Amino acid sequence: MPESVSRRGAIASIVATAGVAATGGALLTGGLNGAASGHAGASDAATPATPSPAGLHGVHQPGIATRQQHYAMFAAFDLQTANLPTAKIATNLQQLMTRWTTVAQRLMLGDPPGPIPGNRPDAPAGSGVADGLNPASLTLTFGLGPEVFDLIGQKERRPAHLRPLPAFSTDRLEPAWSGGHLIAQICADDPQVVSHAFRSLRGQAPGLARLRWSQQGFLGTFGGSTPRNLLGQKDGTSNPKPGTPEFDQAVWAADGEPEWFTGGSYLVFRKIRLDLPKWDLAAARDQDLVIGRRRDTGAPLSGGSEFTAVELGKKGPDGRPAIPADAHVALVRAIPMLRRSYNYDYAVQGITEPIIVEHGHANQDDGHLHEHHSGNSHGSYDSGVLFCAYVRDPEAFIRAQRKLAGSDRLNAFVKHTGSAVFAIPPGSQPGEHLAAALSPSG
Amino acid sequence: MPESVSRRGAIASIVATAGVAATGGALLTGGLNGAASGHAGASDAATPATPSPAGLHGVHQPGIATRQQHYAMFAAFDLQTANLPTAKIATNLQQLMTRWTTVAQRLMLGDPPGPIPGNRPDAPAGSGVADGLNPASLTLTFGLGPEVFDLIGQKERRPAHLRPLPAFSTDRLEPAWSGGHLIAQICADDPQVVSHAFRSLRGQAPGLARLRWSQQGFLGTFGGSTPRNLLGQKDGTSNPKPGTPEFDQAVWAADGEPEWFTGGSYLVFRKIRLDLPKWDLAAARDQDLVIGRRRDTGAPLSGGSEFTAVELGKKGPDGRPAIPADAHVALVRAIPMLRRSYNYDYAVQGITEPIIVEHGHANQDDGHLHEHHSGNSHGSYDSGVLFCAYVRDPEAFIRAQRKLAGSDRLNAFVKHTGSAVFAIPPGSQPGEHLAAALSPSG
Repeated sequence: MPESVSRRGAIASIVATAGVAATGGALLTGGLNGAASGHAGASDAATPATPSPAGLHGVHQPGIATRQQHYAMFAAFDLQTANLPTAKIATNLQQLMTRWTTVAQRLMLGDPPGPIPGNRPDAPAGSGVADGLNPASLTLTFGLGPEVFDLIGQKERRPAHLRPLPAFSTDRLEPAWSGGHLIAQICADDPQVVSHAFRSLRGQAPGLARLRWSQQGFLGTFGGSTPRNLLGQKDGTSNPKPGTPEFDQAVWAADGEPEWFTGGSYLVFRKIRLDLPKWDLAAARDQDLVIGRRRDTGAPLSGGSEFTAVELGKKGPDGRPAIPADAHVALVRAIPMLRRSYNYDYAVQGITEPIIVEHGHANQDDGHLHEHHSGNSHGSYDSGVLFCAYVRDPEAFIRAQRKLAGSDRLNAFVKHTGSAVFAIPPGSQPGEHLAAALSPSG
Repeated sequence: MPESVSRRGAIASIVATAGVAATGGALLTGGLNGAASGHAGASDAATPATPSPAGLHGVHQPGIATRQQHYAMFAAFDLQTANLPTAKIATNLQQLMTRWTTVAQRLMLGDPPGPIPGNRPDAPAGSGVADGLNPASLTLTFGLGPEVFDLIGQKERRPAHLRPLPAFSTDRLEPAWSGGHLIAQICADDPQVVSHAFRSLRGQAPGLARLRWSQQGFLGTFGGSTPRNLLGQKDGTSNPKPGTPEFDQAVWAADGEPEWFTGGSYLVFRKIRLDLPKWDLAAARDQDLVIGRRRDTGAPLSGGSEFTAVELGKKGPDGRPAIPADAHVALVRAIPMLRRSYNYDYAVQGITEPIIVEHGHANQDDGHLHEHHSGNSHGSYDSGVLFCAYVRDPEAFIRAQRKLAGSDRLNAFVKHTGSAVFAIPPGSQPGEHLAAALSPSG
């Protein structure tokens, strides 16, 4: 605790100044938090962790233009709606956003999150789980699902492009990992910081919203180079760089959006299971042809190095296209989006139903437990990509995914099992909470 | 790849020398890998990661006396037994141990794991997932479950204290997270390195063994201080320190063990779910009384600072014992074991059954998914401790757990849902694989 107290003191003045300076500069750079953290792309965990001094205040929320941290949890919540009038749901949303904004600001500064609402007065102010931990570049990013604007009676404020994603022919969606009224993206370089933040946010929800699903991912420490996904491929090579016009045009909401949504974005979330045992058995050359890039260097098969532009017309020595027309890179090339994806590896989780096995049943004296045990087949090996795209308009993703669903060579190895889309409100104004413009009286 | 190649070259000479020097010294220090890594207790991830030059060779396996890394995966496997004669099972075990020893040595040096057995010749030698990653202090530690020695027809070589744990009155065990013929403990400071190692080991198993369960945990970056568990308490304060006689006596197998098991140990694994929502609602004072220590400083309630000895007779100002007789620390005090536990937070995983929801069902056009969704109640919030104890004799754990099951104040907040015990063979001899002494011809 003494450590976080002294850190708080040291940071307080930064906040005061950065809050002003950065807001002024953000309109020029188009990425407050990208500018503040001074990083683009995943970098080394050994880099001293930088707290996010401005937190949720600014033109944009943090966790988008921000350097990608090494751990992420995505937690989707549903608003309580049963027997509640529209006005009450709208008020509840404001209350939750007020609480989450307050807690998020504290956590991003490394401070305790404060008391849980309705808790006894002698309860500790926070779980203590992160006492002594650096905030490890924690960012918290919040979004609103397509159903919310009807639920709160504010259709006219719904962001222009916010609607459920269409069904794709290759979807194999699991409701338990799909949809949601609200999303919290929790990213940091320390998983215990992520766990603590999740728990602190969840503690604010009872009576207002309930957890719907959660998913966790990671990115290895690749230093300055492009991180690899679980296919072994460099993933993110063609991402736009924060601070460039390409980035701003790909990511931040524009044309025809309601006024309050200026500085907002959209998050497309897909849980994509990879059939890794099958992939591992493919020939090296076939792996390269599926993606259209060399796995080792990341260079396109049309030649050059990782950052050389993909050349679709280029022929190989055999006279056929160096990059097949149905290679992954051929299909998604030139579709502007910021991919901020994480790898995930739940391996085999077994069951997660409430524990119903009674004492003694599972722990036979003869030590033979395996006859009780089933289901840990290939089918339950759950590893892959938590695909996240921040986009000006989810149509960019839909266009890409329709192409991929139609003919992507990668389809033989992937299964989309989760799907959700959220409008990401702009950063908050100092003294206000996120999405304050959606207040019933606002 | 160029990076790992150059690292390999740099390390080769270390291996050659350390392999000799460390083996000589290990008998004195009683902890080859503790000595080699030069760390005790969890330390900062920013510390340059040290490969384990000696790997599995030496008096003891790595991953026990080794500084505790920030991520862990525990993967339990069952040997294939259906319709196989004993001699074939014994041979299969040797084959798997040969493969795993080879792959583990490569991985701990940051080298690619080599080809998957039976794979096509043009397949890549490894998944590439860790290309460009530092080995991040990876250690791999292997163990044998109680059933193995009967299965391979070598009862006479069974370690003296290896038998299934008895049932405890507070057990609520889930078979899907319990038992197993074999365990692989995979620890590193980078979760992608852990994921890669898991996949590389699993790729060696088909035809010989199958994955039974896996569990993953983490420890925050607490610098030099004692890590906190998800109760917010410092956990591991009274652990013996590697290189001390207390450590050696607590951890390494002794009295009455078969000759081949010299340098071995036992691992007791328990998955302990914590009722964190309930814990968060408890008064700060009650949290301290449950444990018998102050949550903020880790000091015993009998006074002093974190490392002051617990004084059970001490009275508080109210004349009652400062540490209640049923406080956690009062019950487990002075039971010699090395706890090498990890926190885990799966939050809400929803289902992990094979995906059976067909296209279109989950992704209704109206966007209302939540009516299909159930089970994400408190009961499926899965977070807590992956309790790991390395002990000379599991009886130390059994004694502690019997006391705890009887009267621990903490029982109101914990549920033991997974359980397993393994004999941890000694390190291998250069040129040999782990557990080579169990060869049918040996």
